[in-house]
Amino acid sequence: MPLYEAPLDDMRFTLQHLVGGGDLMACPGFDALDETLVDSILSESAKVCQESLSSVNYSGHQEHSKHIGDGQVRTPKGFKEAHDALAEGGWIGLPADPEHGGQGLPRTLSTAVSEMWQAANMSLALCPLLSQGVIDALEAVGSEEQKATYLPALIEGRWTGTMNLTEPQAGTDLASLRAQAVREGDRYRIKGQKIFITYGEHDMSDNIIHLVLARTPDAPEGIKGISLFIVPKFILDADGQPGERNDVTCISIEDKLGIVGSPTCVLQYGEKDGAVGYLIGEENKGLSYMFIMMNRARFEVGVQGLGISQMAYQHALAYARERMQGQPLGRSATTPIIGHPDVKRLLAEMKSQIEAMRALAYVAAAELDLSRLGADEATRAAAQTRLELLVPIVKAWSTELSVEITSHGVQVHGGTGFIEETGAAQYYRDARILPIYEGTTAIQANDIVFRKTLRDQGAAVRDLLGDMSNDIAGALSDQDAGQLAAFSASLAESQRALDAVLSYANEPARAAAVGVPYLKMLGYVCGAWFMLRAAKAAQAELASANPGHSVEFLTSKIKSAAFYMSHILPRARALATTVCTGAGDVLAIEDDWL
Amino acid sequence: MPLYEAPLDDMRFTLQHLVGGGDLMACPGFDALDETLVDSILSESAKVCQESLSSVNYSGHQEHSKHIGDGQVRTPKGFKEAHDALAEGGWIGLPADPEHGGQGLPRTLSTAVSEMWQAANMSLALCPLLSQGVIDALEAVGSEEQKATYLPALIEGRWTGTMNLTEPQAGTDLASLRAQAVREGDRYRIKGQKIFITYGEHDMSDNIIHLVLARTPDAPEGIKGISLFIVPKFILDADGQPGERNDVTCISIEDKLGIVGSPTCVLQYGEKDGAVGYLIGEENKGLSYMFIMMNRARFEVGVQGLGISQMAYQHALAYARERMQGQPLGRSATTPIIGHPDVKRLLAEMKSQIEAMRALAYVAAAELDLSRLGADEATRAAAQTRLELLVPIVKAWSTELSVEITSHGVQVHGGTGFIEETGAAQYYRDARILPIYEGTTAIQANDIVFRKTLRDQGAAVRDLLGDMSNDIAGALSDQDAGQLAAFSASLAESQRALDAVLSYANEPARAAAVGVPYLKMLGYVCGAWFMLRAAKAAQAELASANPGHSVEFLTSKIKSAAFYMSHILPRARALATTVCTGAGDVLAIEDDWL
Repeated sequence: MPLYEAPLDDMRFTLQHLVGGGDLMACPGFDALDETLVDSILSESAKVCQESLSSVNYSGHQEHSKHIGDGQVRTPKGFKEAHDALAEGGWIGLPADPEHGGQGLPRTLSTAVSEMWQAANMSLALCPLLSQGVIDALEAVGSEEQKATYLPALIEGRWTGTMNLTEPQAGTDLASLRAQAVREGDRYRIKGQKIFITYGEHDMSDNIIHLVLARTPDAPEGIKGISLFIVPKFILDADGQPGERNDVTCISIEDKLGIVGSPTCVLQYGEKDGAVGYLIGEENKGLSYMFIMMNRARFEVGVQGLGISQMAYQHALAYARERMQGQPLGRSATTPIIGHPDVKRLLAEMKSQIEAMRALAYVAAAELDLSRLGADEATRAAAQTRLELLVPIVKAWSTELSVEITSHGVQVHGGTGFIEETGAAQYYRDARILPIYEGTTAIQANDIVFRKTLRDQGAAVRDLLGDMSNDIAGALSDQDAGQLAAFSASLAESQRALDAVLSYANEPARAAAVGVPYLKMLGYVCGAWFMLRAAKAAQAELASANPGHSVEFLTSKIKSAAFYMSHILPRARALATTVCTGAGDVLAIEDDWL
Repeated sequence: MPLYEAPLDDMRFTLQHLVGGGDLMACPGFDALDETLVDSILSESAKVCQESLSSVNYSGHQEHSKHIGDGQVRTPKGFKEAHDALAEGGWIGLPADPEHGGQGLPRTLSTAVSEMWQAANMSLALCPLLSQGVIDALEAVGSEEQKATYLPALIEGRWTGTMNLTEPQAGTDLASLRAQAVREGDRYRIKGQKIFITYGEHDMSDNIIHLVLARTPDAPEGIKGISLFIVPKFILDADGQPGERNDVTCISIEDKLGIVGSPTCVLQYGEKDGAVGYLIGEENKGLSYMFIMMNRARFEVGVQGLGISQMAYQHALAYARERMQGQPLGRSATTPIIGHPDVKRLLAEMKSQIEAMRALAYVAAAELDLSRLGADEATRAAAQTRLELLVPIVKAWSTELSVEITSHGVQVHGGTGFIEETGAAQYYRDARILPIYEGTTAIQANDIVFRKTLRDQGAAVRDLLGDMSNDIAGALSDQDAGQLAAFSASLAESQRALDAVLSYANEPARAAAVGVPYLKMLGYVCGAWFMLRAAKAAQAELASANPGHSVEFLTSKIKSAAFYMSHILPRARALATTVCTGAGDVLAIEDDWL
């Protein structure tokens, strides 16, 4: 089983050129760092991911996390050690506030690190991903006492975090949550069942900090009556150490299609007197607090799509280089299958889309940094607007692509890919959750259609498309004419698709009916933009006296962009057609006609 | 777990209108039948598939076929009974020659029956699928004695068949086969290892008839030195009954991503003196004989894609009708999720593409019947040409779609879809083998590019596109103008893509680099053609005094076609762009740049 090797070249190239505009240290928040430190963070992360995480990825898939009775869950062999390695290296707190022990590094940089975690072992990496979400939420809305109580151990990775939203009757529809929280002095007693709780119980940390949505007895109905609570697995004693076991039990874990190394728990709160919980912020504002955590998680799930695609690509590429089979057309002897045109096409589809996804994720992370660190309010606000537009694209587009790319990984292997022990099937199975959890692709599409497009009458999207058009007329104007024409035509069609969505302002069902094609279209055009900019930057490096990357790498970036324009971008035009003409054809179908 | 319900309405509609031109009994070969018989065959098949096959589909997925030592394989509980039900009902021999006990029914009809098998239980149905392939091959190239010896028991389902091509070093590349066959009087001794042998060993029949590719000692190198042998698991005694155990052993079965109810065997031939085998036809002509079986299998694998997509659709639809969640836009109360526009869009994508795939499969089957039964040589030859063009599309396009459609089935279920016990994941896992076995999608693309397009300078493809154009100007000319314009534009672009492929006649690598996009493009335009013709037929039925189907069904066909034109057909245009512009961008990527 090949171990993960972080694509440090492309990560660095993407940071330098697509975020930093040619200068790595111009990435937002990098001014407090130096180049050597950035490089050593990336290479040290690559090392821990390969040695500790990647090495137990397939064995974890074989072994599964197991519910071993008495409410306990046993994670696969080596998972605790891998989690310890992340914790002890200070990796979990990389982007966290230094006040409570974090490294305070920019998200742009920590996103590259996250990509490595997710590529190396997605099942394992889900745990620190969720801890980081809890850290984010507490940093943003926890009281000073809550921060002091919980953040240090979470940041050190001694404790881990979870996110408890879903109940059996309430998945996407959080309005129908029923879990109850009854006030008892300065704390609450929580009762109810939560499902799909990732790492809701496990054996890798000393405590588990659950963030739980529940209703107080007098709360209004619907989403305006939901509050957010901290519910530790072990209630802290007077010294702030894990003490008495709280009244929350893992009653079972799910038998899943993928990510079987991670436990997905059914948690029962309040089988006895009710689990002790502590209110975060104010009552009835829980959903907005939870969205802090969820927005982080959505972005990170997009990064999972990127990471697992990269690993599937590496695995398929290694096989394609070693598997001897047939004489490809135009070659005289039996060669590795990479010489067959369609195998190369599949690999190029994987590679070019991964590069586009990486650029999108890192650029979005930089907008997040800029929204905090920007020099002035206008810069920060513009970055926040762009970030909010990009997050659902990162989440939905990258994860939908990851399903396709991991499927390509199986296909490159031929019949061997269908055999479990080859390992290609694991990525295909693992990736399938990504377009579902933390808000399905349809939920992301609703977000982008209603909150990010219709609410501002298309201003943010128009601005994004405008930046692309400006590049065609400006920075990119010396690029290949055919590629520019294709990109330009896609932008014009995207603009028409935007107009179509805007025209549905008073017909929300119509807008929702083409939301997913609209979101995916935007993903593909963003990808084209980044690929063209990358090609331009690669050309400039190649022409320079002292290029920062190898000629092979830089040439491959240029070829990858060309491939993207003729093989991937045409999908954007097809999707634009659907957005412009297809809404009515969905709604015309009565429920009973299906 | 919902049981399979055969979509008899759409099967009958498709036969009647897309094959029979409005008259069910005008389907080729139906003249010896009557309408009541056709209907009763379909409804009886639906019953046995639901009761015997579908009922053990998920339990078979849970249980797996198991290698229980001593070369034996135990199939899941109920599989033998299900196979017996098919055998005893005479279903396996439905299309076989009556001379040896078959029913001699047209393939057009038996394809609908096959679809039901594959939908109800793909793992189980693989066994009779392969038996039918062996029957086909023996009917075509077996000696009279071989036919008399093997066909009756195969047709009755007392024995089953297998296809032995692949060896560890020889997958797609059959030229590198190494299995040896040494002549010994009127028989041969076979030695070698074969892998990926579906139902190579099992407990559902009294004997297993292996068709095995091997080389004689003096055979030429490459594919011109391969011969085909009959190797029974039990050598027949003087009475033609299974006697002595032959020297072929199942040494292991694979742990697979899907179709785990079916055993995929590693067979060792000749651990002792060599397995006794009987030459079929002449030495060194084995590959062309095996292609008889393989062509059938390729078509049937396409039908598997259709069947499993239908089952995934039914399952998702049932869930979407019962799962209450949220208030869809424009609806006032919590409703089943089918009311959410994107859930409906996903279901409509599944439904419309399944209908298109069904039409393609049945039309191709009718060409096969016509190639045998056509009134004159010209008709038979034209049907054969069309059949050979359509088979790789049926195989590759339908199976690629089945991966996407079964993925949609998971998505409709949301988080629940990722849980194994929901059942949606099984279809997603099972379907993944379909674009791989019996020739990967790339192999089908090579077939259509080199043998079906370049060899006749595009005549067959031009003829197919011409039939579509003629329909736009003729039979379909009264249809929706927007739909016709979209279809017409796709045809023009397909024509340009054909010209591009023809222009690569002397650059085979270039042609191969866009073979898969070219094949898929043809699949999507064929689908559009059938959908428009179906809509036209549905309109005619609706307007008639005595329509043969319900108003709901007929209306749904019309809506499904409209949906296909705005949501699915645009992909054909995107693919045509790739065919026309993307070949060079694949080949420009050096092996080392990936």
